[in-house]
Amino acid sequence: MKILVINGPNINLLGTREPEIYGTLTLEKIEKMLTEYAAKCGVEISFFQSNIEGEIVDAIQKAKFEWNCNGIVINPAAYTHTSVAIRDAIAAVELPAVEVHISNIHKREEFRKNSFIAPVCIGQIAGFGVDSYKLGLKGLVDNIVLNNELHQG
Amino acid sequence: MKILVINGPNINLLGTREPEIYGTLTLEKIEKMLTEYAAKCGVEISFFQSNIEGEIVDAIQKAKFEWNCNGIVINPAAYTHTSVAIRDAIAAVELPAVEVHISNIHKREEFRKNSFIAPVCIGQIAGFGVDSYKLGLKGLVDNIVLNNELHQG
Amino acid sequence: MKILVINGPNINLLGTREPEIYGTLTLEKIEKMLTEYAAKCGVEISFFQSNIEGEIVDAIQKAKFEWNCNGIVINPAAYTHTSVAIRDAIAAVELPAVEVHISNIHKREEFRKNSFIAPVCIGQIAGFGVDSYKLGLKGLVDNIVLNNELHQG
Amino acid sequence: MKILVINGPNINLLGTREPEIYGTLTLEKIEKMLTEYAAKCGVEISFFQSNIEGEIVDAIQKAKFEWNCNGIVINPAAYTHTSVAIRDAIAAVELPAVEVHISNIHKREEFRKNSFIAPVCIGQIAGFGVDSYKLGLKGLVDNIVLNNELHQG
Amino acid sequence: MKILVINGPNINLLGTREPEIYGTLTLEKIEKMLTEYAAKCGVEISFFQSNIEGEIVDAIQKAKFEWNCNGIVINPAAYTHTSVAIRDAIAAVELPAVEVHISNIHKREEFRKNSFIAPVCIGQIAGFGVDSYKLGLKGLVDNIVLNNELHQG
Amino acid sequence: MKILVINGPNINLLGTREPEIYGTLTLEKIEKMLTEYAAKCGVEISFFQSNIEGEIVDAIQKAKFEWNCNGIVINPAAYTHTSVAIRDAIAAVELPAVEVHISNIHKREEFRKNSFIAPVCIGQIAGFGVDSYKLGLKGLVDNIVLNNELHQG
Amino acid sequence: MKILVINGPNINLLGTREPEIYGTLTLEKIEKMLTEYAAKCGVEISFFQSNIEGEIVDAIQKAKFEWNCNGIVINPAAYTHTSVAIRDAIAAVELPAVEVHISNIHKREEFRKNSFIAPVCIGQIAGFGVDSYKLGLKGLVDNIVLNNELHQG
Amino acid sequence: MKILVINGPNINLLGTREPEIYGTLTLEKIEKMLTEYAAKCGVEISFFQSNIEGEIVDAIQKAKFEWNCNGIVINPAAYTHTSVAIRDAIAAVELPAVEVHISNIHKREEFRKNSFIAPVCIGQIAGFGVDSYKLGLKGLVDNIVLNNELHQG
Amino acid sequence: MKILVINGPNINLLGTREPEIYGTLTLEKIEKMLTEYAAKCGVEISFFQSNIEGEIVDAIQKAKFEWNCNGIVINPAAYTHTSVAIRDAIAAVELPAVEVHISNIHKREEFRKNSFIAPVCIGQIAGFGVDSYKLGLKGLVDNIVLNNELHQG
Amino acid sequence: MKILVINGPNINLLGTREPEIYGTLTLEKIEKMLTEYAAKCGVEISFFQSNIEGEIVDAIQKAKFEWNCNGIVINPAAYTHTSVAIRDAIAAVELPAVEVHISNIHKREEFRKNSFIAPVCIGQIAGFGVDSYKLGLKGLVDNIVLNNELHQG
Amino acid sequence: MKILVINGPNINLLGTREPEIYGTLTLEKIEKMLTEYAAKCGVEISFFQSNIEGEIVDAIQKAKFEWNCNGIVINPAAYTHTSVAIRDAIAAVELPAVEVHISNIHKREEFRKNSFIAPVCIGQIAGFGVDSYKLGLKGLVDNIVLNNELHQG
Amino acid sequence: MKILVINGPNINLLGTREPEIYGTLTLEKIEKMLTEYAAKCGVEISFFQSNIEGEIVDAIQKAKFEWNCNGIVINPAAYTHTSVAIRDAIAAVELPAVEVHISNIHKREEFRKNSFIAPVCIGQIAGFGVDSYKLGLKGLVDNIVLNNELHQG
Repeated sequence: MKILVINGPNINLLGTREPEIYGTLTLEKIEKMLTEYAAKCGVEISFFQSNIEGEIVDAIQKAKFEWNCNGIVINPAAYTHTSVAIRDAIAAVELPAVEVHISNIHKREEFRKNSFIAPVCIGQIAGFGVDSYKLGLKGLVDNIVLNNELHQG
Repeated sequence: MKILVINGPNINLLGTREPEIYGTLTLEKIEKMLTEYAAKCGVEISFFQSNIEGEIVDAIQKAKFEWNCNGIVINPAAYTHTSVAIRDAIAAVELPAVEVHISNIHKREEFRKNSFIAPVCIGQIAGFGVDSYKLGLKGLVDNIVLNNELHQG
Repeated sequence: MKILVINGPNINLLGTREPEIYGTLTLEKIEKMLTEYAAKCGVEISFFQSNIEGEIVDAIQKAKFEWNCNGIVINPAAYTHTSVAIRDAIAAVELPAVEVHISNIHKREEFRKNSFIAPVCIGQIAGFGVDSYKLGLKGLVDNIVLNNELHQG
Repeated sequence: MKILVINGPNINLLGTREPEIYGTLTLEKIEKMLTEYAAKCGVEISFFQSNIEGEIVDAIQKAKFEWNCNGIVINPAAYTHTSVAIRDAIAAVELPAVEVHISNIHKREEFRKNSFIAPVCIGQIAGFGVDSYKLGLKGLVDNIVLNNELHQG
Repeated sequence: MKILVINGPNINLLGTREPEIYGTLTLEKIEKMLTEYAAKCGVEISFFQSNIEGEIVDAIQKAKFEWNCNGIVINPAAYTHTSVAIRDAIAAVELPAVEVHISNIHKREEFRKNSFIAPVCIGQIAGFGVDSYKLGLKGLVDNIVLNNELHQG
Repeated sequence: MKILVINGPNINLLGTREPEIYGTLTLEKIEKMLTEYAAKCGVEISFFQSNIEGEIVDAIQKAKFEWNCNGIVINPAAYTHTSVAIRDAIAAVELPAVEVHISNIHKREEFRKNSFIAPVCIGQIAGFGVDSYKLGLKGLVDNIVLNNELHQG
Repeated sequence: MKILVINGPNINLLGTREPEIYGTLTLEKIEKMLTEYAAKCGVEISFFQSNIEGEIVDAIQKAKFEWNCNGIVINPAAYTHTSVAIRDAIAAVELPAVEVHISNIHKREEFRKNSFIAPVCIGQIAGFGVDSYKLGLKGLVDNIVLNNELHQG
Repeated sequence: MKILVINGPNINLLGTREPEIYGTLTLEKIEKMLTEYAAKCGVEISFFQSNIEGEIVDAIQKAKFEWNCNGIVINPAAYTHTSVAIRDAIAAVELPAVEVHISNIHKREEFRKNSFIAPVCIGQIAGFGVDSYKLGLKGLVDNIVLNNELHQG
Repeated sequence: MKILVINGPNINLLGTREPEIYGTLTLEKIEKMLTEYAAKCGVEISFFQSNIEGEIVDAIQKAKFEWNCNGIVINPAAYTHTSVAIRDAIAAVELPAVEVHISNIHKREEFRKNSFIAPVCIGQIAGFGVDSYKLGLKGLVDNIVLNNELHQG
Repeated sequence: MKILVINGPNINLLGTREPEIYGTLTLEKIEKMLTEYAAKCGVEISFFQSNIEGEIVDAIQKAKFEWNCNGIVINPAAYTHTSVAIRDAIAAVELPAVEVHISNIHKREEFRKNSFIAPVCIGQIAGFGVDSYKLGLKGLVDNIVLNNELHQG
Repeated sequence: MKILVINGPNINLLGTREPEIYGTLTLEKIEKMLTEYAAKCGVEISFFQSNIEGEIVDAIQKAKFEWNCNGIVINPAAYTHTSVAIRDAIAAVELPAVEVHISNIHKREEFRKNSFIAPVCIGQIAGFGVDSYKLGLKGLVDNIVLNNELHQG
Repeated sequence: MKILVINGPNINLLGTREPEIYGTLTLEKIEKMLTEYAAKCGVEISFFQSNIEGEIVDAIQKAKFEWNCNGIVINPAAYTHTSVAIRDAIAAVELPAVEVHISNIHKREEFRKNSFIAPVCIGQIAGFGVDSYKLGLKGLVDNIVLNNELHQG
């Protein structure tokens, strides 16, 4: 099983950006941590980060048609609240996806409560710091396994 | 470490209620599954379910002052969207809490998108079926451990 | 056929409460009147009243799983406008239900125009004084009979 | 006692129009059924249908000043949600009126939840298929009888 | 100079309809009174009343193209708040028009505060009972005279 | 009979201010014109203008308790849309009042459509240029005469 | 194939009404132009115009049940934004329909952006002057042909 | 004179709950303080606290029909903003009531600004810490005395 | 200790203005009553009333910088709902302030529910007639004493 | 004449993406079909697709200043509802443009009803499947021809 | 060239009022600083401050008609968000004006984001502390010079 | 000191785009003008323009971490109203930033009044044509100098 982890704008600054909200781990370290965690779950993992909305759309398309991924963990960051394009991309490729957020978006500015992405995902996980990625990965993998069993069952 | 899992109204019907949305596992089985999972994590777990908003408020208060719990996993169900009382209870007891939902509330009726509870929790997890409880329990426990280390550090 | 009539908060005060809006019949007399009316229709009838939202949820669950009712006439009173829990309970037990109101809620305060309950019921009847119960009972029974005929058809 | 049953736009298509929502009975058959039902209640009944808002206004005025009706059962259909003119007509003639709907308007599009007509009626009945007319007729007749008794003391 | 006075739905009931709001003069008497008043102003006057929105649209078109009117006094009644068609008709014929209301629509239901018609009129007069017509007629005539003088320079 | 004409902020600039909206007559000339017109109607007239909301409140109070006026014609100008204090003053003194506007406020910015003042007045007249004052004065005087006759009647 | 072209209120004024918005062609000429265009497409075409909402409802019903039309091109004009009755009529007859507008309604007043009709049509075309009719006719005919092929396919 | 003091959800935690908002006095001490204060005023006082909305409804009903209270001081806490049932109970029993809040709800979250309860009370007092109860008690007692004098006067 | 009581627009009419809402006591008598009451509390009291928003701003500034007041009781009347300037003045001088209202603003027009002033005050008291001033004065004085004690601790 | 057809995000997936909404033709085939259609119209056509909002802005600028296009057919897809940048680009280059949509955006999610782009276009065409492009191209070309004739006229 | 600097309510407290928001410079010192700065720019400068909305209206009128100013720098403070009267005054005198704010109003309370004044000014400058005045003065003067050159050009 | 000037979408068209709104200077000339102005202020300046939201995010990140800038002047153009990503980038890098606009966005379409960017900037300057850049640069530099002095002070 192959999972793509997509990170949206400004996530590349992790570790330096507002550490009281986002923690002190860099993206590189998070990716390393997730790679190890994925290995434990017997899952292949790869990463994509971009500050450009349309490149994230591209990556979602490639995840399905070029990279043969089985699912997506996505932290759309700021685009969570403004991007119909990313929503449409996920709906279009019909890959199971999980939306994750490092911070608890439900206790921040009003405009951060709305997600264009969550309705086309399996679910949303927010507020657990970098653990949100781990939980999201686990939730996604278990969901795919379950569905496979159902379909094979 | 001691965790209380609170379930709100109609969760006692799980396994019978709209299985296409909520799955076919009964609450009893979910509790059994979670007890085993908690054991693996080295955590003591107990359960509370009520259809009465105020009894859930009572339980949250007791979790802190009588039962000596270290944290709460709560699926407030319908009260997610209407209960300021449960929100105030969690804020009052200052126990770390995680809000979980079996279904993806972000793709259902408009009124299910708002949560009075999430802003006073560590975070929210929605959409993973009964796995939402597992993910929530894991996220909560890791969060408590991390904070303990920080404070002892 | 067995029908449960559920009355929400403050309905127990009928006959004393704001008679210019709610009339002068007590709940006891209404129940007697309805019992006679039900007998004429060849239907068994029972009653439940509570001021507690969650107890109404309990009653709806028991109507299906303990009391073997075939349908519910419910006057949710104040909870009409605030209770997602009662809505979810009716949707969960999948019993045919009819929402009734003594007063015409459409000509009162703005917030009384919205019903969380009506969308999961067969229909809504409002404004006919205590006759709303009779009309609701008749509408419910005829609906159940019709559906039975269709299914046996 | 003389009752006028008014049907709004597209009700003349009943039996052909979206039968999964409105049933398979034609308007002609419904009128026949209601005539029989009215006879049983000892009430004279007549019918009016128009697709034109202003003709319904005319009919309401005539019901009072030309046809000597004692009350109105009205299914305003689409005009429920858009017609202040029909509302004003009912308020102007001061005839007791009951608003009925075949479908449960509370579980359809958002704009169908608002009724300009209901606040000037005795009450509203929605969702019982063609039985809504029967229930509305019964509710209206009983209401008129009751008021007559009160005034005659 | 020729002026058309248009009255919308239910104005034909004046004198009988809710006299505490609309007064006790019948439409016939008001028309007589206005005819005399118009004569004094040296203006020819004619009247049109309909309960049908589209017939009012027709009348506005004819006022310009068939009846050679120089201006319109219109009490759109209920259609004030719902008719884009009447608005478009007035804008299309480019006749000076004045909107009048017997009652003070600004102190009634919220939905009566909005007028689709007023923005395409010279102005709006509301609240002076049947005097609103007189004031409207006077305001219209003076406005037309003034514009004629301006154009004749 | 004694009438006070109150003009709100910036009306003192009339004749200079945006003449394409407000015309070219100065306030002085309008007052002269109105004095003559009032004389014809057999009415004594006086004038008050201020740019200060509270001074307009003062004037309304004095109109009743010091100057023995029988009614008020008020063009609240910008305060139409923002002043609860002027509204309360008119309601408090219980003098008949008429709100007038030179321009048609219903075809200008959205925020100019709402009037805090109109609901406590007999009525509102807008859009007739300086004729709005004449029409308002006439409407007010006729209304007072009518009410006097009714009370003496 | 037989197509009905329906025009709503004030379209009969085309050529005279606000030519800077609606152009200088009369409705008669447009109908002639469309008849020729339809002939080229091998389609029979007929026309209906009314200023009365309910007559348009009637025409839609007859298009299906009396005139045996295969589809409708409708310019609902002002009723686009206010008529649930026309919406319900199109949904009821289940004829393929196309909504057209001469002007670009999306760049006009805010209230012209909402269409009650478009959601029950194949699609909407706006802004191409009288060419909107041609484009709408072409779009409708091609759509019907395509669906016929699919069903016969 | 007999007064019932009702406290809503989480008020039983006073002294422990968010002391920077709610102060450090326990509910027990507040009740003792109020009992002394009531004694000074020559008033008998009793207390009721519940976290359950419907039990508060019950208590309001009993205050009138079982406990013969003359008035109610109520801190509905979280239910202030969500409970129509408590509002209806106070309106139904027609006892004079005063709504009090320890914190200044007007400077907290937006949703705490709305009170369903205040419109059916004599008045509302918010922000004076535990003194709000004293002020509320005093305001209530003086109000009852005044009304008694008026009625006996 | 020195307290300033500020009254906003139209409060100078008390005793004459809408007595069914505001009572029959004149402002003079209320000030006398409050002076006596203040004396009992051992507090010096002075009064300021103006109908002019900006003069109230002036008074608030002087209360702090010229008159050496320790606190303010303010009934902003109509300016409660419209004055950011008064809000800013209270925040700027950092004097403890209490907002009082004679009537229960929570049961009047919708626009009277919002207060710009309350969020910068200790608290708000509404609905107790002229007793609202007494309660406000008492609440303010006790609050100042308490804070002094805390600071002197 | 030279026309640029611009396609927004995820349109490159056509033929694979949600075929029940968007049909089974690939973008390549659509472009081929349009090239042939353009040839028939005697128009040169070129294509641009990007998932990146800013690249679409670039393309619109180049259409005018580098590629010498005479007009634009644009399917902004998801950016229809979120992009002010594309709106500004079209307004800036002052090229005639037509907005097209494959699906009927007026019957989908609420947020798809608003278009930032349509107000700066000639018009909008939605719902005709891939035929929307043809209709849009035809509408655009005819519009340009017409304007050229007018200017040369 | 002559510029008037107008300061709204509470600006006279600068240096004492909430220094963490507004800085520690007094208004007197700011005026001195600006006078020097204006001298450098070769511009005559004068100052006006009032807490009274209507006096600011007066000053704006005098700036044009009595004091012969060429432009206005205005910090309307609290009146920014509530004063249509000041907006109308600036529009009426047709003097170039610049709105300045010491604090960044865009990051404060929601209601401070709206400005009634900015739409009738050249522009708005907010957030630069007392430098906002300097920047505003410079922007205004350069704008006037530019326009003069254009007109003379 | 080193400042980066960032320009958003379509600003590269300056001089050609809607000159009545944006003036006739090209971006190249503006940059030259600013370079000279910066030199006078003793500040090094560089420029960045992109039509792509994410590239602007990149540039903001590089300004801090690669190019060692001390502050940012940004004209986000269309992204002002839609980009949370740019907002988050500025907040993340914690560089002082100033938002500038050539046109007065407060007098244009409603949606241009909201800025996602301004709340994370020092301030906003709008409406001064290309002078907005100069003023923004000056405001930014003075602010940085002031803060440096404070920190060194």
